[in-house]
Amino acid sequence: MSQFKYLELEHLLRKDIRANHFLPSGKLPSVRELCQNLGFSKATVLHALHRLEAEGLIFSKPKSGYFVKTVTPNDRLSPKRINPPAAPRDVTVPAILKDIMTRSAAFDILPTAGATNDANHLITLNRHLSKALRSRPTQKALYYNDSSGDMRLKDAIVTHYRHRSLNQDPSQVCITGGCQHALFISLMATCSPGDTVAVESPAFYGVLQIMEQLKLKIIEVAADPEEGLSVDDLAEKITEWPIKACIVSPNYATPTGAFMPEKARRALINLAVEKDFCIIEDDIYGDLAFPPFTAEPLKKFDPNGQVILCGSFSKSLSRDLRIGWVFGGKWHDKITQLKLVTQLSSSESIQQGLATFLEEGHYRRYLAQQVNTLKQQQRELMMLLDIHWSDNIRYTHAQGGISMWIELDESINTQRSYNKVLEQGVIMTPGSLFSASGQYKNFLRLSYIHPLTEQRQAAVKKLFSVLLG
Amino acid sequence: MSQFKYLELEHLLRKDIRANHFLPSGKLPSVRELCQNLGFSKATVLHALHRLEAEGLIFSKPKSGYFVKTVTPNDRLSPKRINPPAAPRDVTVPAILKDIMTRSAAFDILPTAGATNDANHLITLNRHLSKALRSRPTQKALYYNDSSGDMRLKDAIVTHYRHRSLNQDPSQVCITGGCQHALFISLMATCSPGDTVAVESPAFYGVLQIMEQLKLKIIEVAADPEEGLSVDDLAEKITEWPIKACIVSPNYATPTGAFMPEKARRALINLAVEKDFCIIEDDIYGDLAFPPFTAEPLKKFDPNGQVILCGSFSKSLSRDLRIGWVFGGKWHDKITQLKLVTQLSSSESIQQGLATFLEEGHYRRYLAQQVNTLKQQQRELMMLLDIHWSDNIRYTHAQGGISMWIELDESINTQRSYNKVLEQGVIMTPGSLFSASGQYKNFLRLSYIHPLTEQRQAAVKKLFSVLLG
Repeated sequence: MSQFKYLELEHLLRKDIRANHFLPSGKLPSVRELCQNLGFSKATVLHALHRLEAEGLIFSKPKSGYFVKTVTPNDRLSPKRINPPAAPRDVTVPAILKDIMTRSAAFDILPTAGATNDANHLITLNRHLSKALRSRPTQKALYYNDSSGDMRLKDAIVTHYRHRSLNQDPSQVCITGGCQHALFISLMATCSPGDTVAVESPAFYGVLQIMEQLKLKIIEVAADPEEGLSVDDLAEKITEWPIKACIVSPNYATPTGAFMPEKARRALINLAVEKDFCIIEDDIYGDLAFPPFTAEPLKKFDPNGQVILCGSFSKSLSRDLRIGWVFGGKWHDKITQLKLVTQLSSSESIQQGLATFLEEGHYRRYLAQQVNTLKQQQRELMMLLDIHWSDNIRYTHAQGGISMWIELDESINTQRSYNKVLEQGVIMTPGSLFSASGQYKNFLRLSYIHPLTEQRQAAVKKLFSVLLG
Repeated sequence: MSQFKYLELEHLLRKDIRANHFLPSGKLPSVRELCQNLGFSKATVLHALHRLEAEGLIFSKPKSGYFVKTVTPNDRLSPKRINPPAAPRDVTVPAILKDIMTRSAAFDILPTAGATNDANHLITLNRHLSKALRSRPTQKALYYNDSSGDMRLKDAIVTHYRHRSLNQDPSQVCITGGCQHALFISLMATCSPGDTVAVESPAFYGVLQIMEQLKLKIIEVAADPEEGLSVDDLAEKITEWPIKACIVSPNYATPTGAFMPEKARRALINLAVEKDFCIIEDDIYGDLAFPPFTAEPLKKFDPNGQVILCGSFSKSLSRDLRIGWVFGGKWHDKITQLKLVTQLSSSESIQQGLATFLEEGHYRRYLAQQVNTLKQQQRELMMLLDIHWSDNIRYTHAQGGISMWIELDESINTQRSYNKVLEQGVIMTPGSLFSASGQYKNFLRLSYIHPLTEQRQAAVKKLFSVLLG
């Protein structure tokens, strides 16, 4: 019986207990059900239950099974939703945060890569890229690829999205140099300097930097750490302050990992149509839904091209490719023009090699395995947190993606501890990065994209020992 | 005796005669000198001289040699310099020109690539790229490369520039996604919407498109087709209308191939320091100086970081790499920030493979051969033009680069003939592309970057038969 196994089950049960999952009766599933449904051995299940009983969290009734002892409806595990200031403001990202952002882009708490996962898919990918480099090299050296991208790659991306219930025409796709580039040209296409853009709070810091450079004003909109953007808050704010665009990550947003319910998605699109603003959907985590889920893009519900979808392979396959895409909706022509103006074209060889990789099904096969790895790494991280700091932190439990949003006691300022943590060789991503108005001082983001090696476990411990004092 | 040989000599002599090169005496070099200095056979030299004599351009004096018969100081071979309008204006690029620009980016008059030059250097390059892809793939997949670029590549680029008398520190280089990207972030770093930028006329159309998107105003500055930007015209204009930046290609600018004399370069930099504007140097053709020349960048004379140099491998090595660079001077930090905001980072594998290619001397070896190829292709194109249309056109004779600027009779409108030429399967680059104020209607750009195959010769003939009626 591995230590991880019973700790994992203990974690799952504790989480369900706190979330009042077993109400109204308070009865836990039977030992046999736990074995069968979750795939644990009987010994593991009994060990976990005995530990929770010893802790006083559950009790057993003879011939009836286990019941929740203390029902604590207010003991919510998730971090708080914060209401950001209402009025539009300029975005000014302090230089110190820009440094921190750059280091945080790898989502790793270690400054240099430790052990990493299996790389068979990358060997296959690189074989296809090399093959593409060898094909018609002179032609590629002397002629630019179509600015909007390679037709085969566009086809392959569109085909991939069909598995997520989105039907688009390849002629409506523009290939970019990654998702940041996609977001940049989408904001340039839809807004002019001085315009106001709504952004969920907490927000992806890359978007804040784009807005600063494009001289756009921001309205931060409240977002639930588990369910994402509050459409009610958005609707209320834009009555007073009209917006040109709203940037949203409905699927497993960074930093929270939130997933927007379908009802909220439909409400958001209706609002965009009614008030005539553009929705820019950041779908970079959309492929990373944990089984059995599949995450449909918001754009699926888009009636008339009001949604611009931006995506990339950087989080789901490789950051080395520098390939992203935009489904530009109404703004497709303008976006293609901006692709040309900002970068002329993308590498034909890279696009062709990647297209073959997609066409042959390697990407889908890799994803199917990768989401299980991520889910497992998420569980391990949650367990580590539960074992050591369950009384001191609240965190999000996402159903996909790579991000966990952690709330600490209000007396703790994560950004202020940044350098002290860095001296320990640990890279923290403080919550203040994700706000344009100084929120989230007692928050931080952790990621489970990297395996929780002993070295990383030690780093997490160092991190919290500095933060919690 | 090949036909090309005597036609080539005939062309050279005719050009020198028209340029009054043999004044004051009017005496041509002796037959022996022509043989020795230019490497032609005696038969070729005599044949060419006899043809020029028959044409009435030269005459022989017994025991003295050949002399110029008609000295025509006004019969200048080069196209006219045009004085663009003075006041700053918004840039609006018509949609039809955007289509034409996209097709013209390959510099080829054929829509699909015909025969191309030797590709050994590309095989070597691609071998290095593939090797880099195989090195530490997981690391590269999971971690972003430093936003400002790979240190080895920056070192290699700086080392390369030393051969052109420019000494820069690698820490002052930012790697970009090509020269267009470099120009884009340089303009973003130095200007705000509504600011005025000086651009030489004729101008690179990619810059006009950037300025349109960034909502910058343009002052077009007169430029000589052979000697580039007129610093006098610039100095006069900015007295009345202050500028934030001036974009200039001192080395073999497209479309003219002009090369700025050193005196003008120094005057330009003095003016920039005095009037406090930024010079953005587009150095994309700087490596393509024809022997025995080497082209020093303008930035060599830069006293205090007033010049931003933008370059790329797209014209000199491969358009498939999508790698360019900026030496940002005073604006380096801001430019690096904008690289991050617009594209996050560049592919580490591509940068590393390219760095090895440079370090091992392959790029310099290839360039040494390529400039001779370009020079030869330029000669062939000039001969073709001289044989068929010497009375109807004026063109530039650049000492490097890939562009020739051609002036036709004022009654001819090249843009209006664009579709008629296209129907013949020929892609023309009309002069109007290179102006923001409707100039150069009777101009066009031709390139000699591609071998002048029979197919391309036929295309040039079709082009002028449509244009000249």
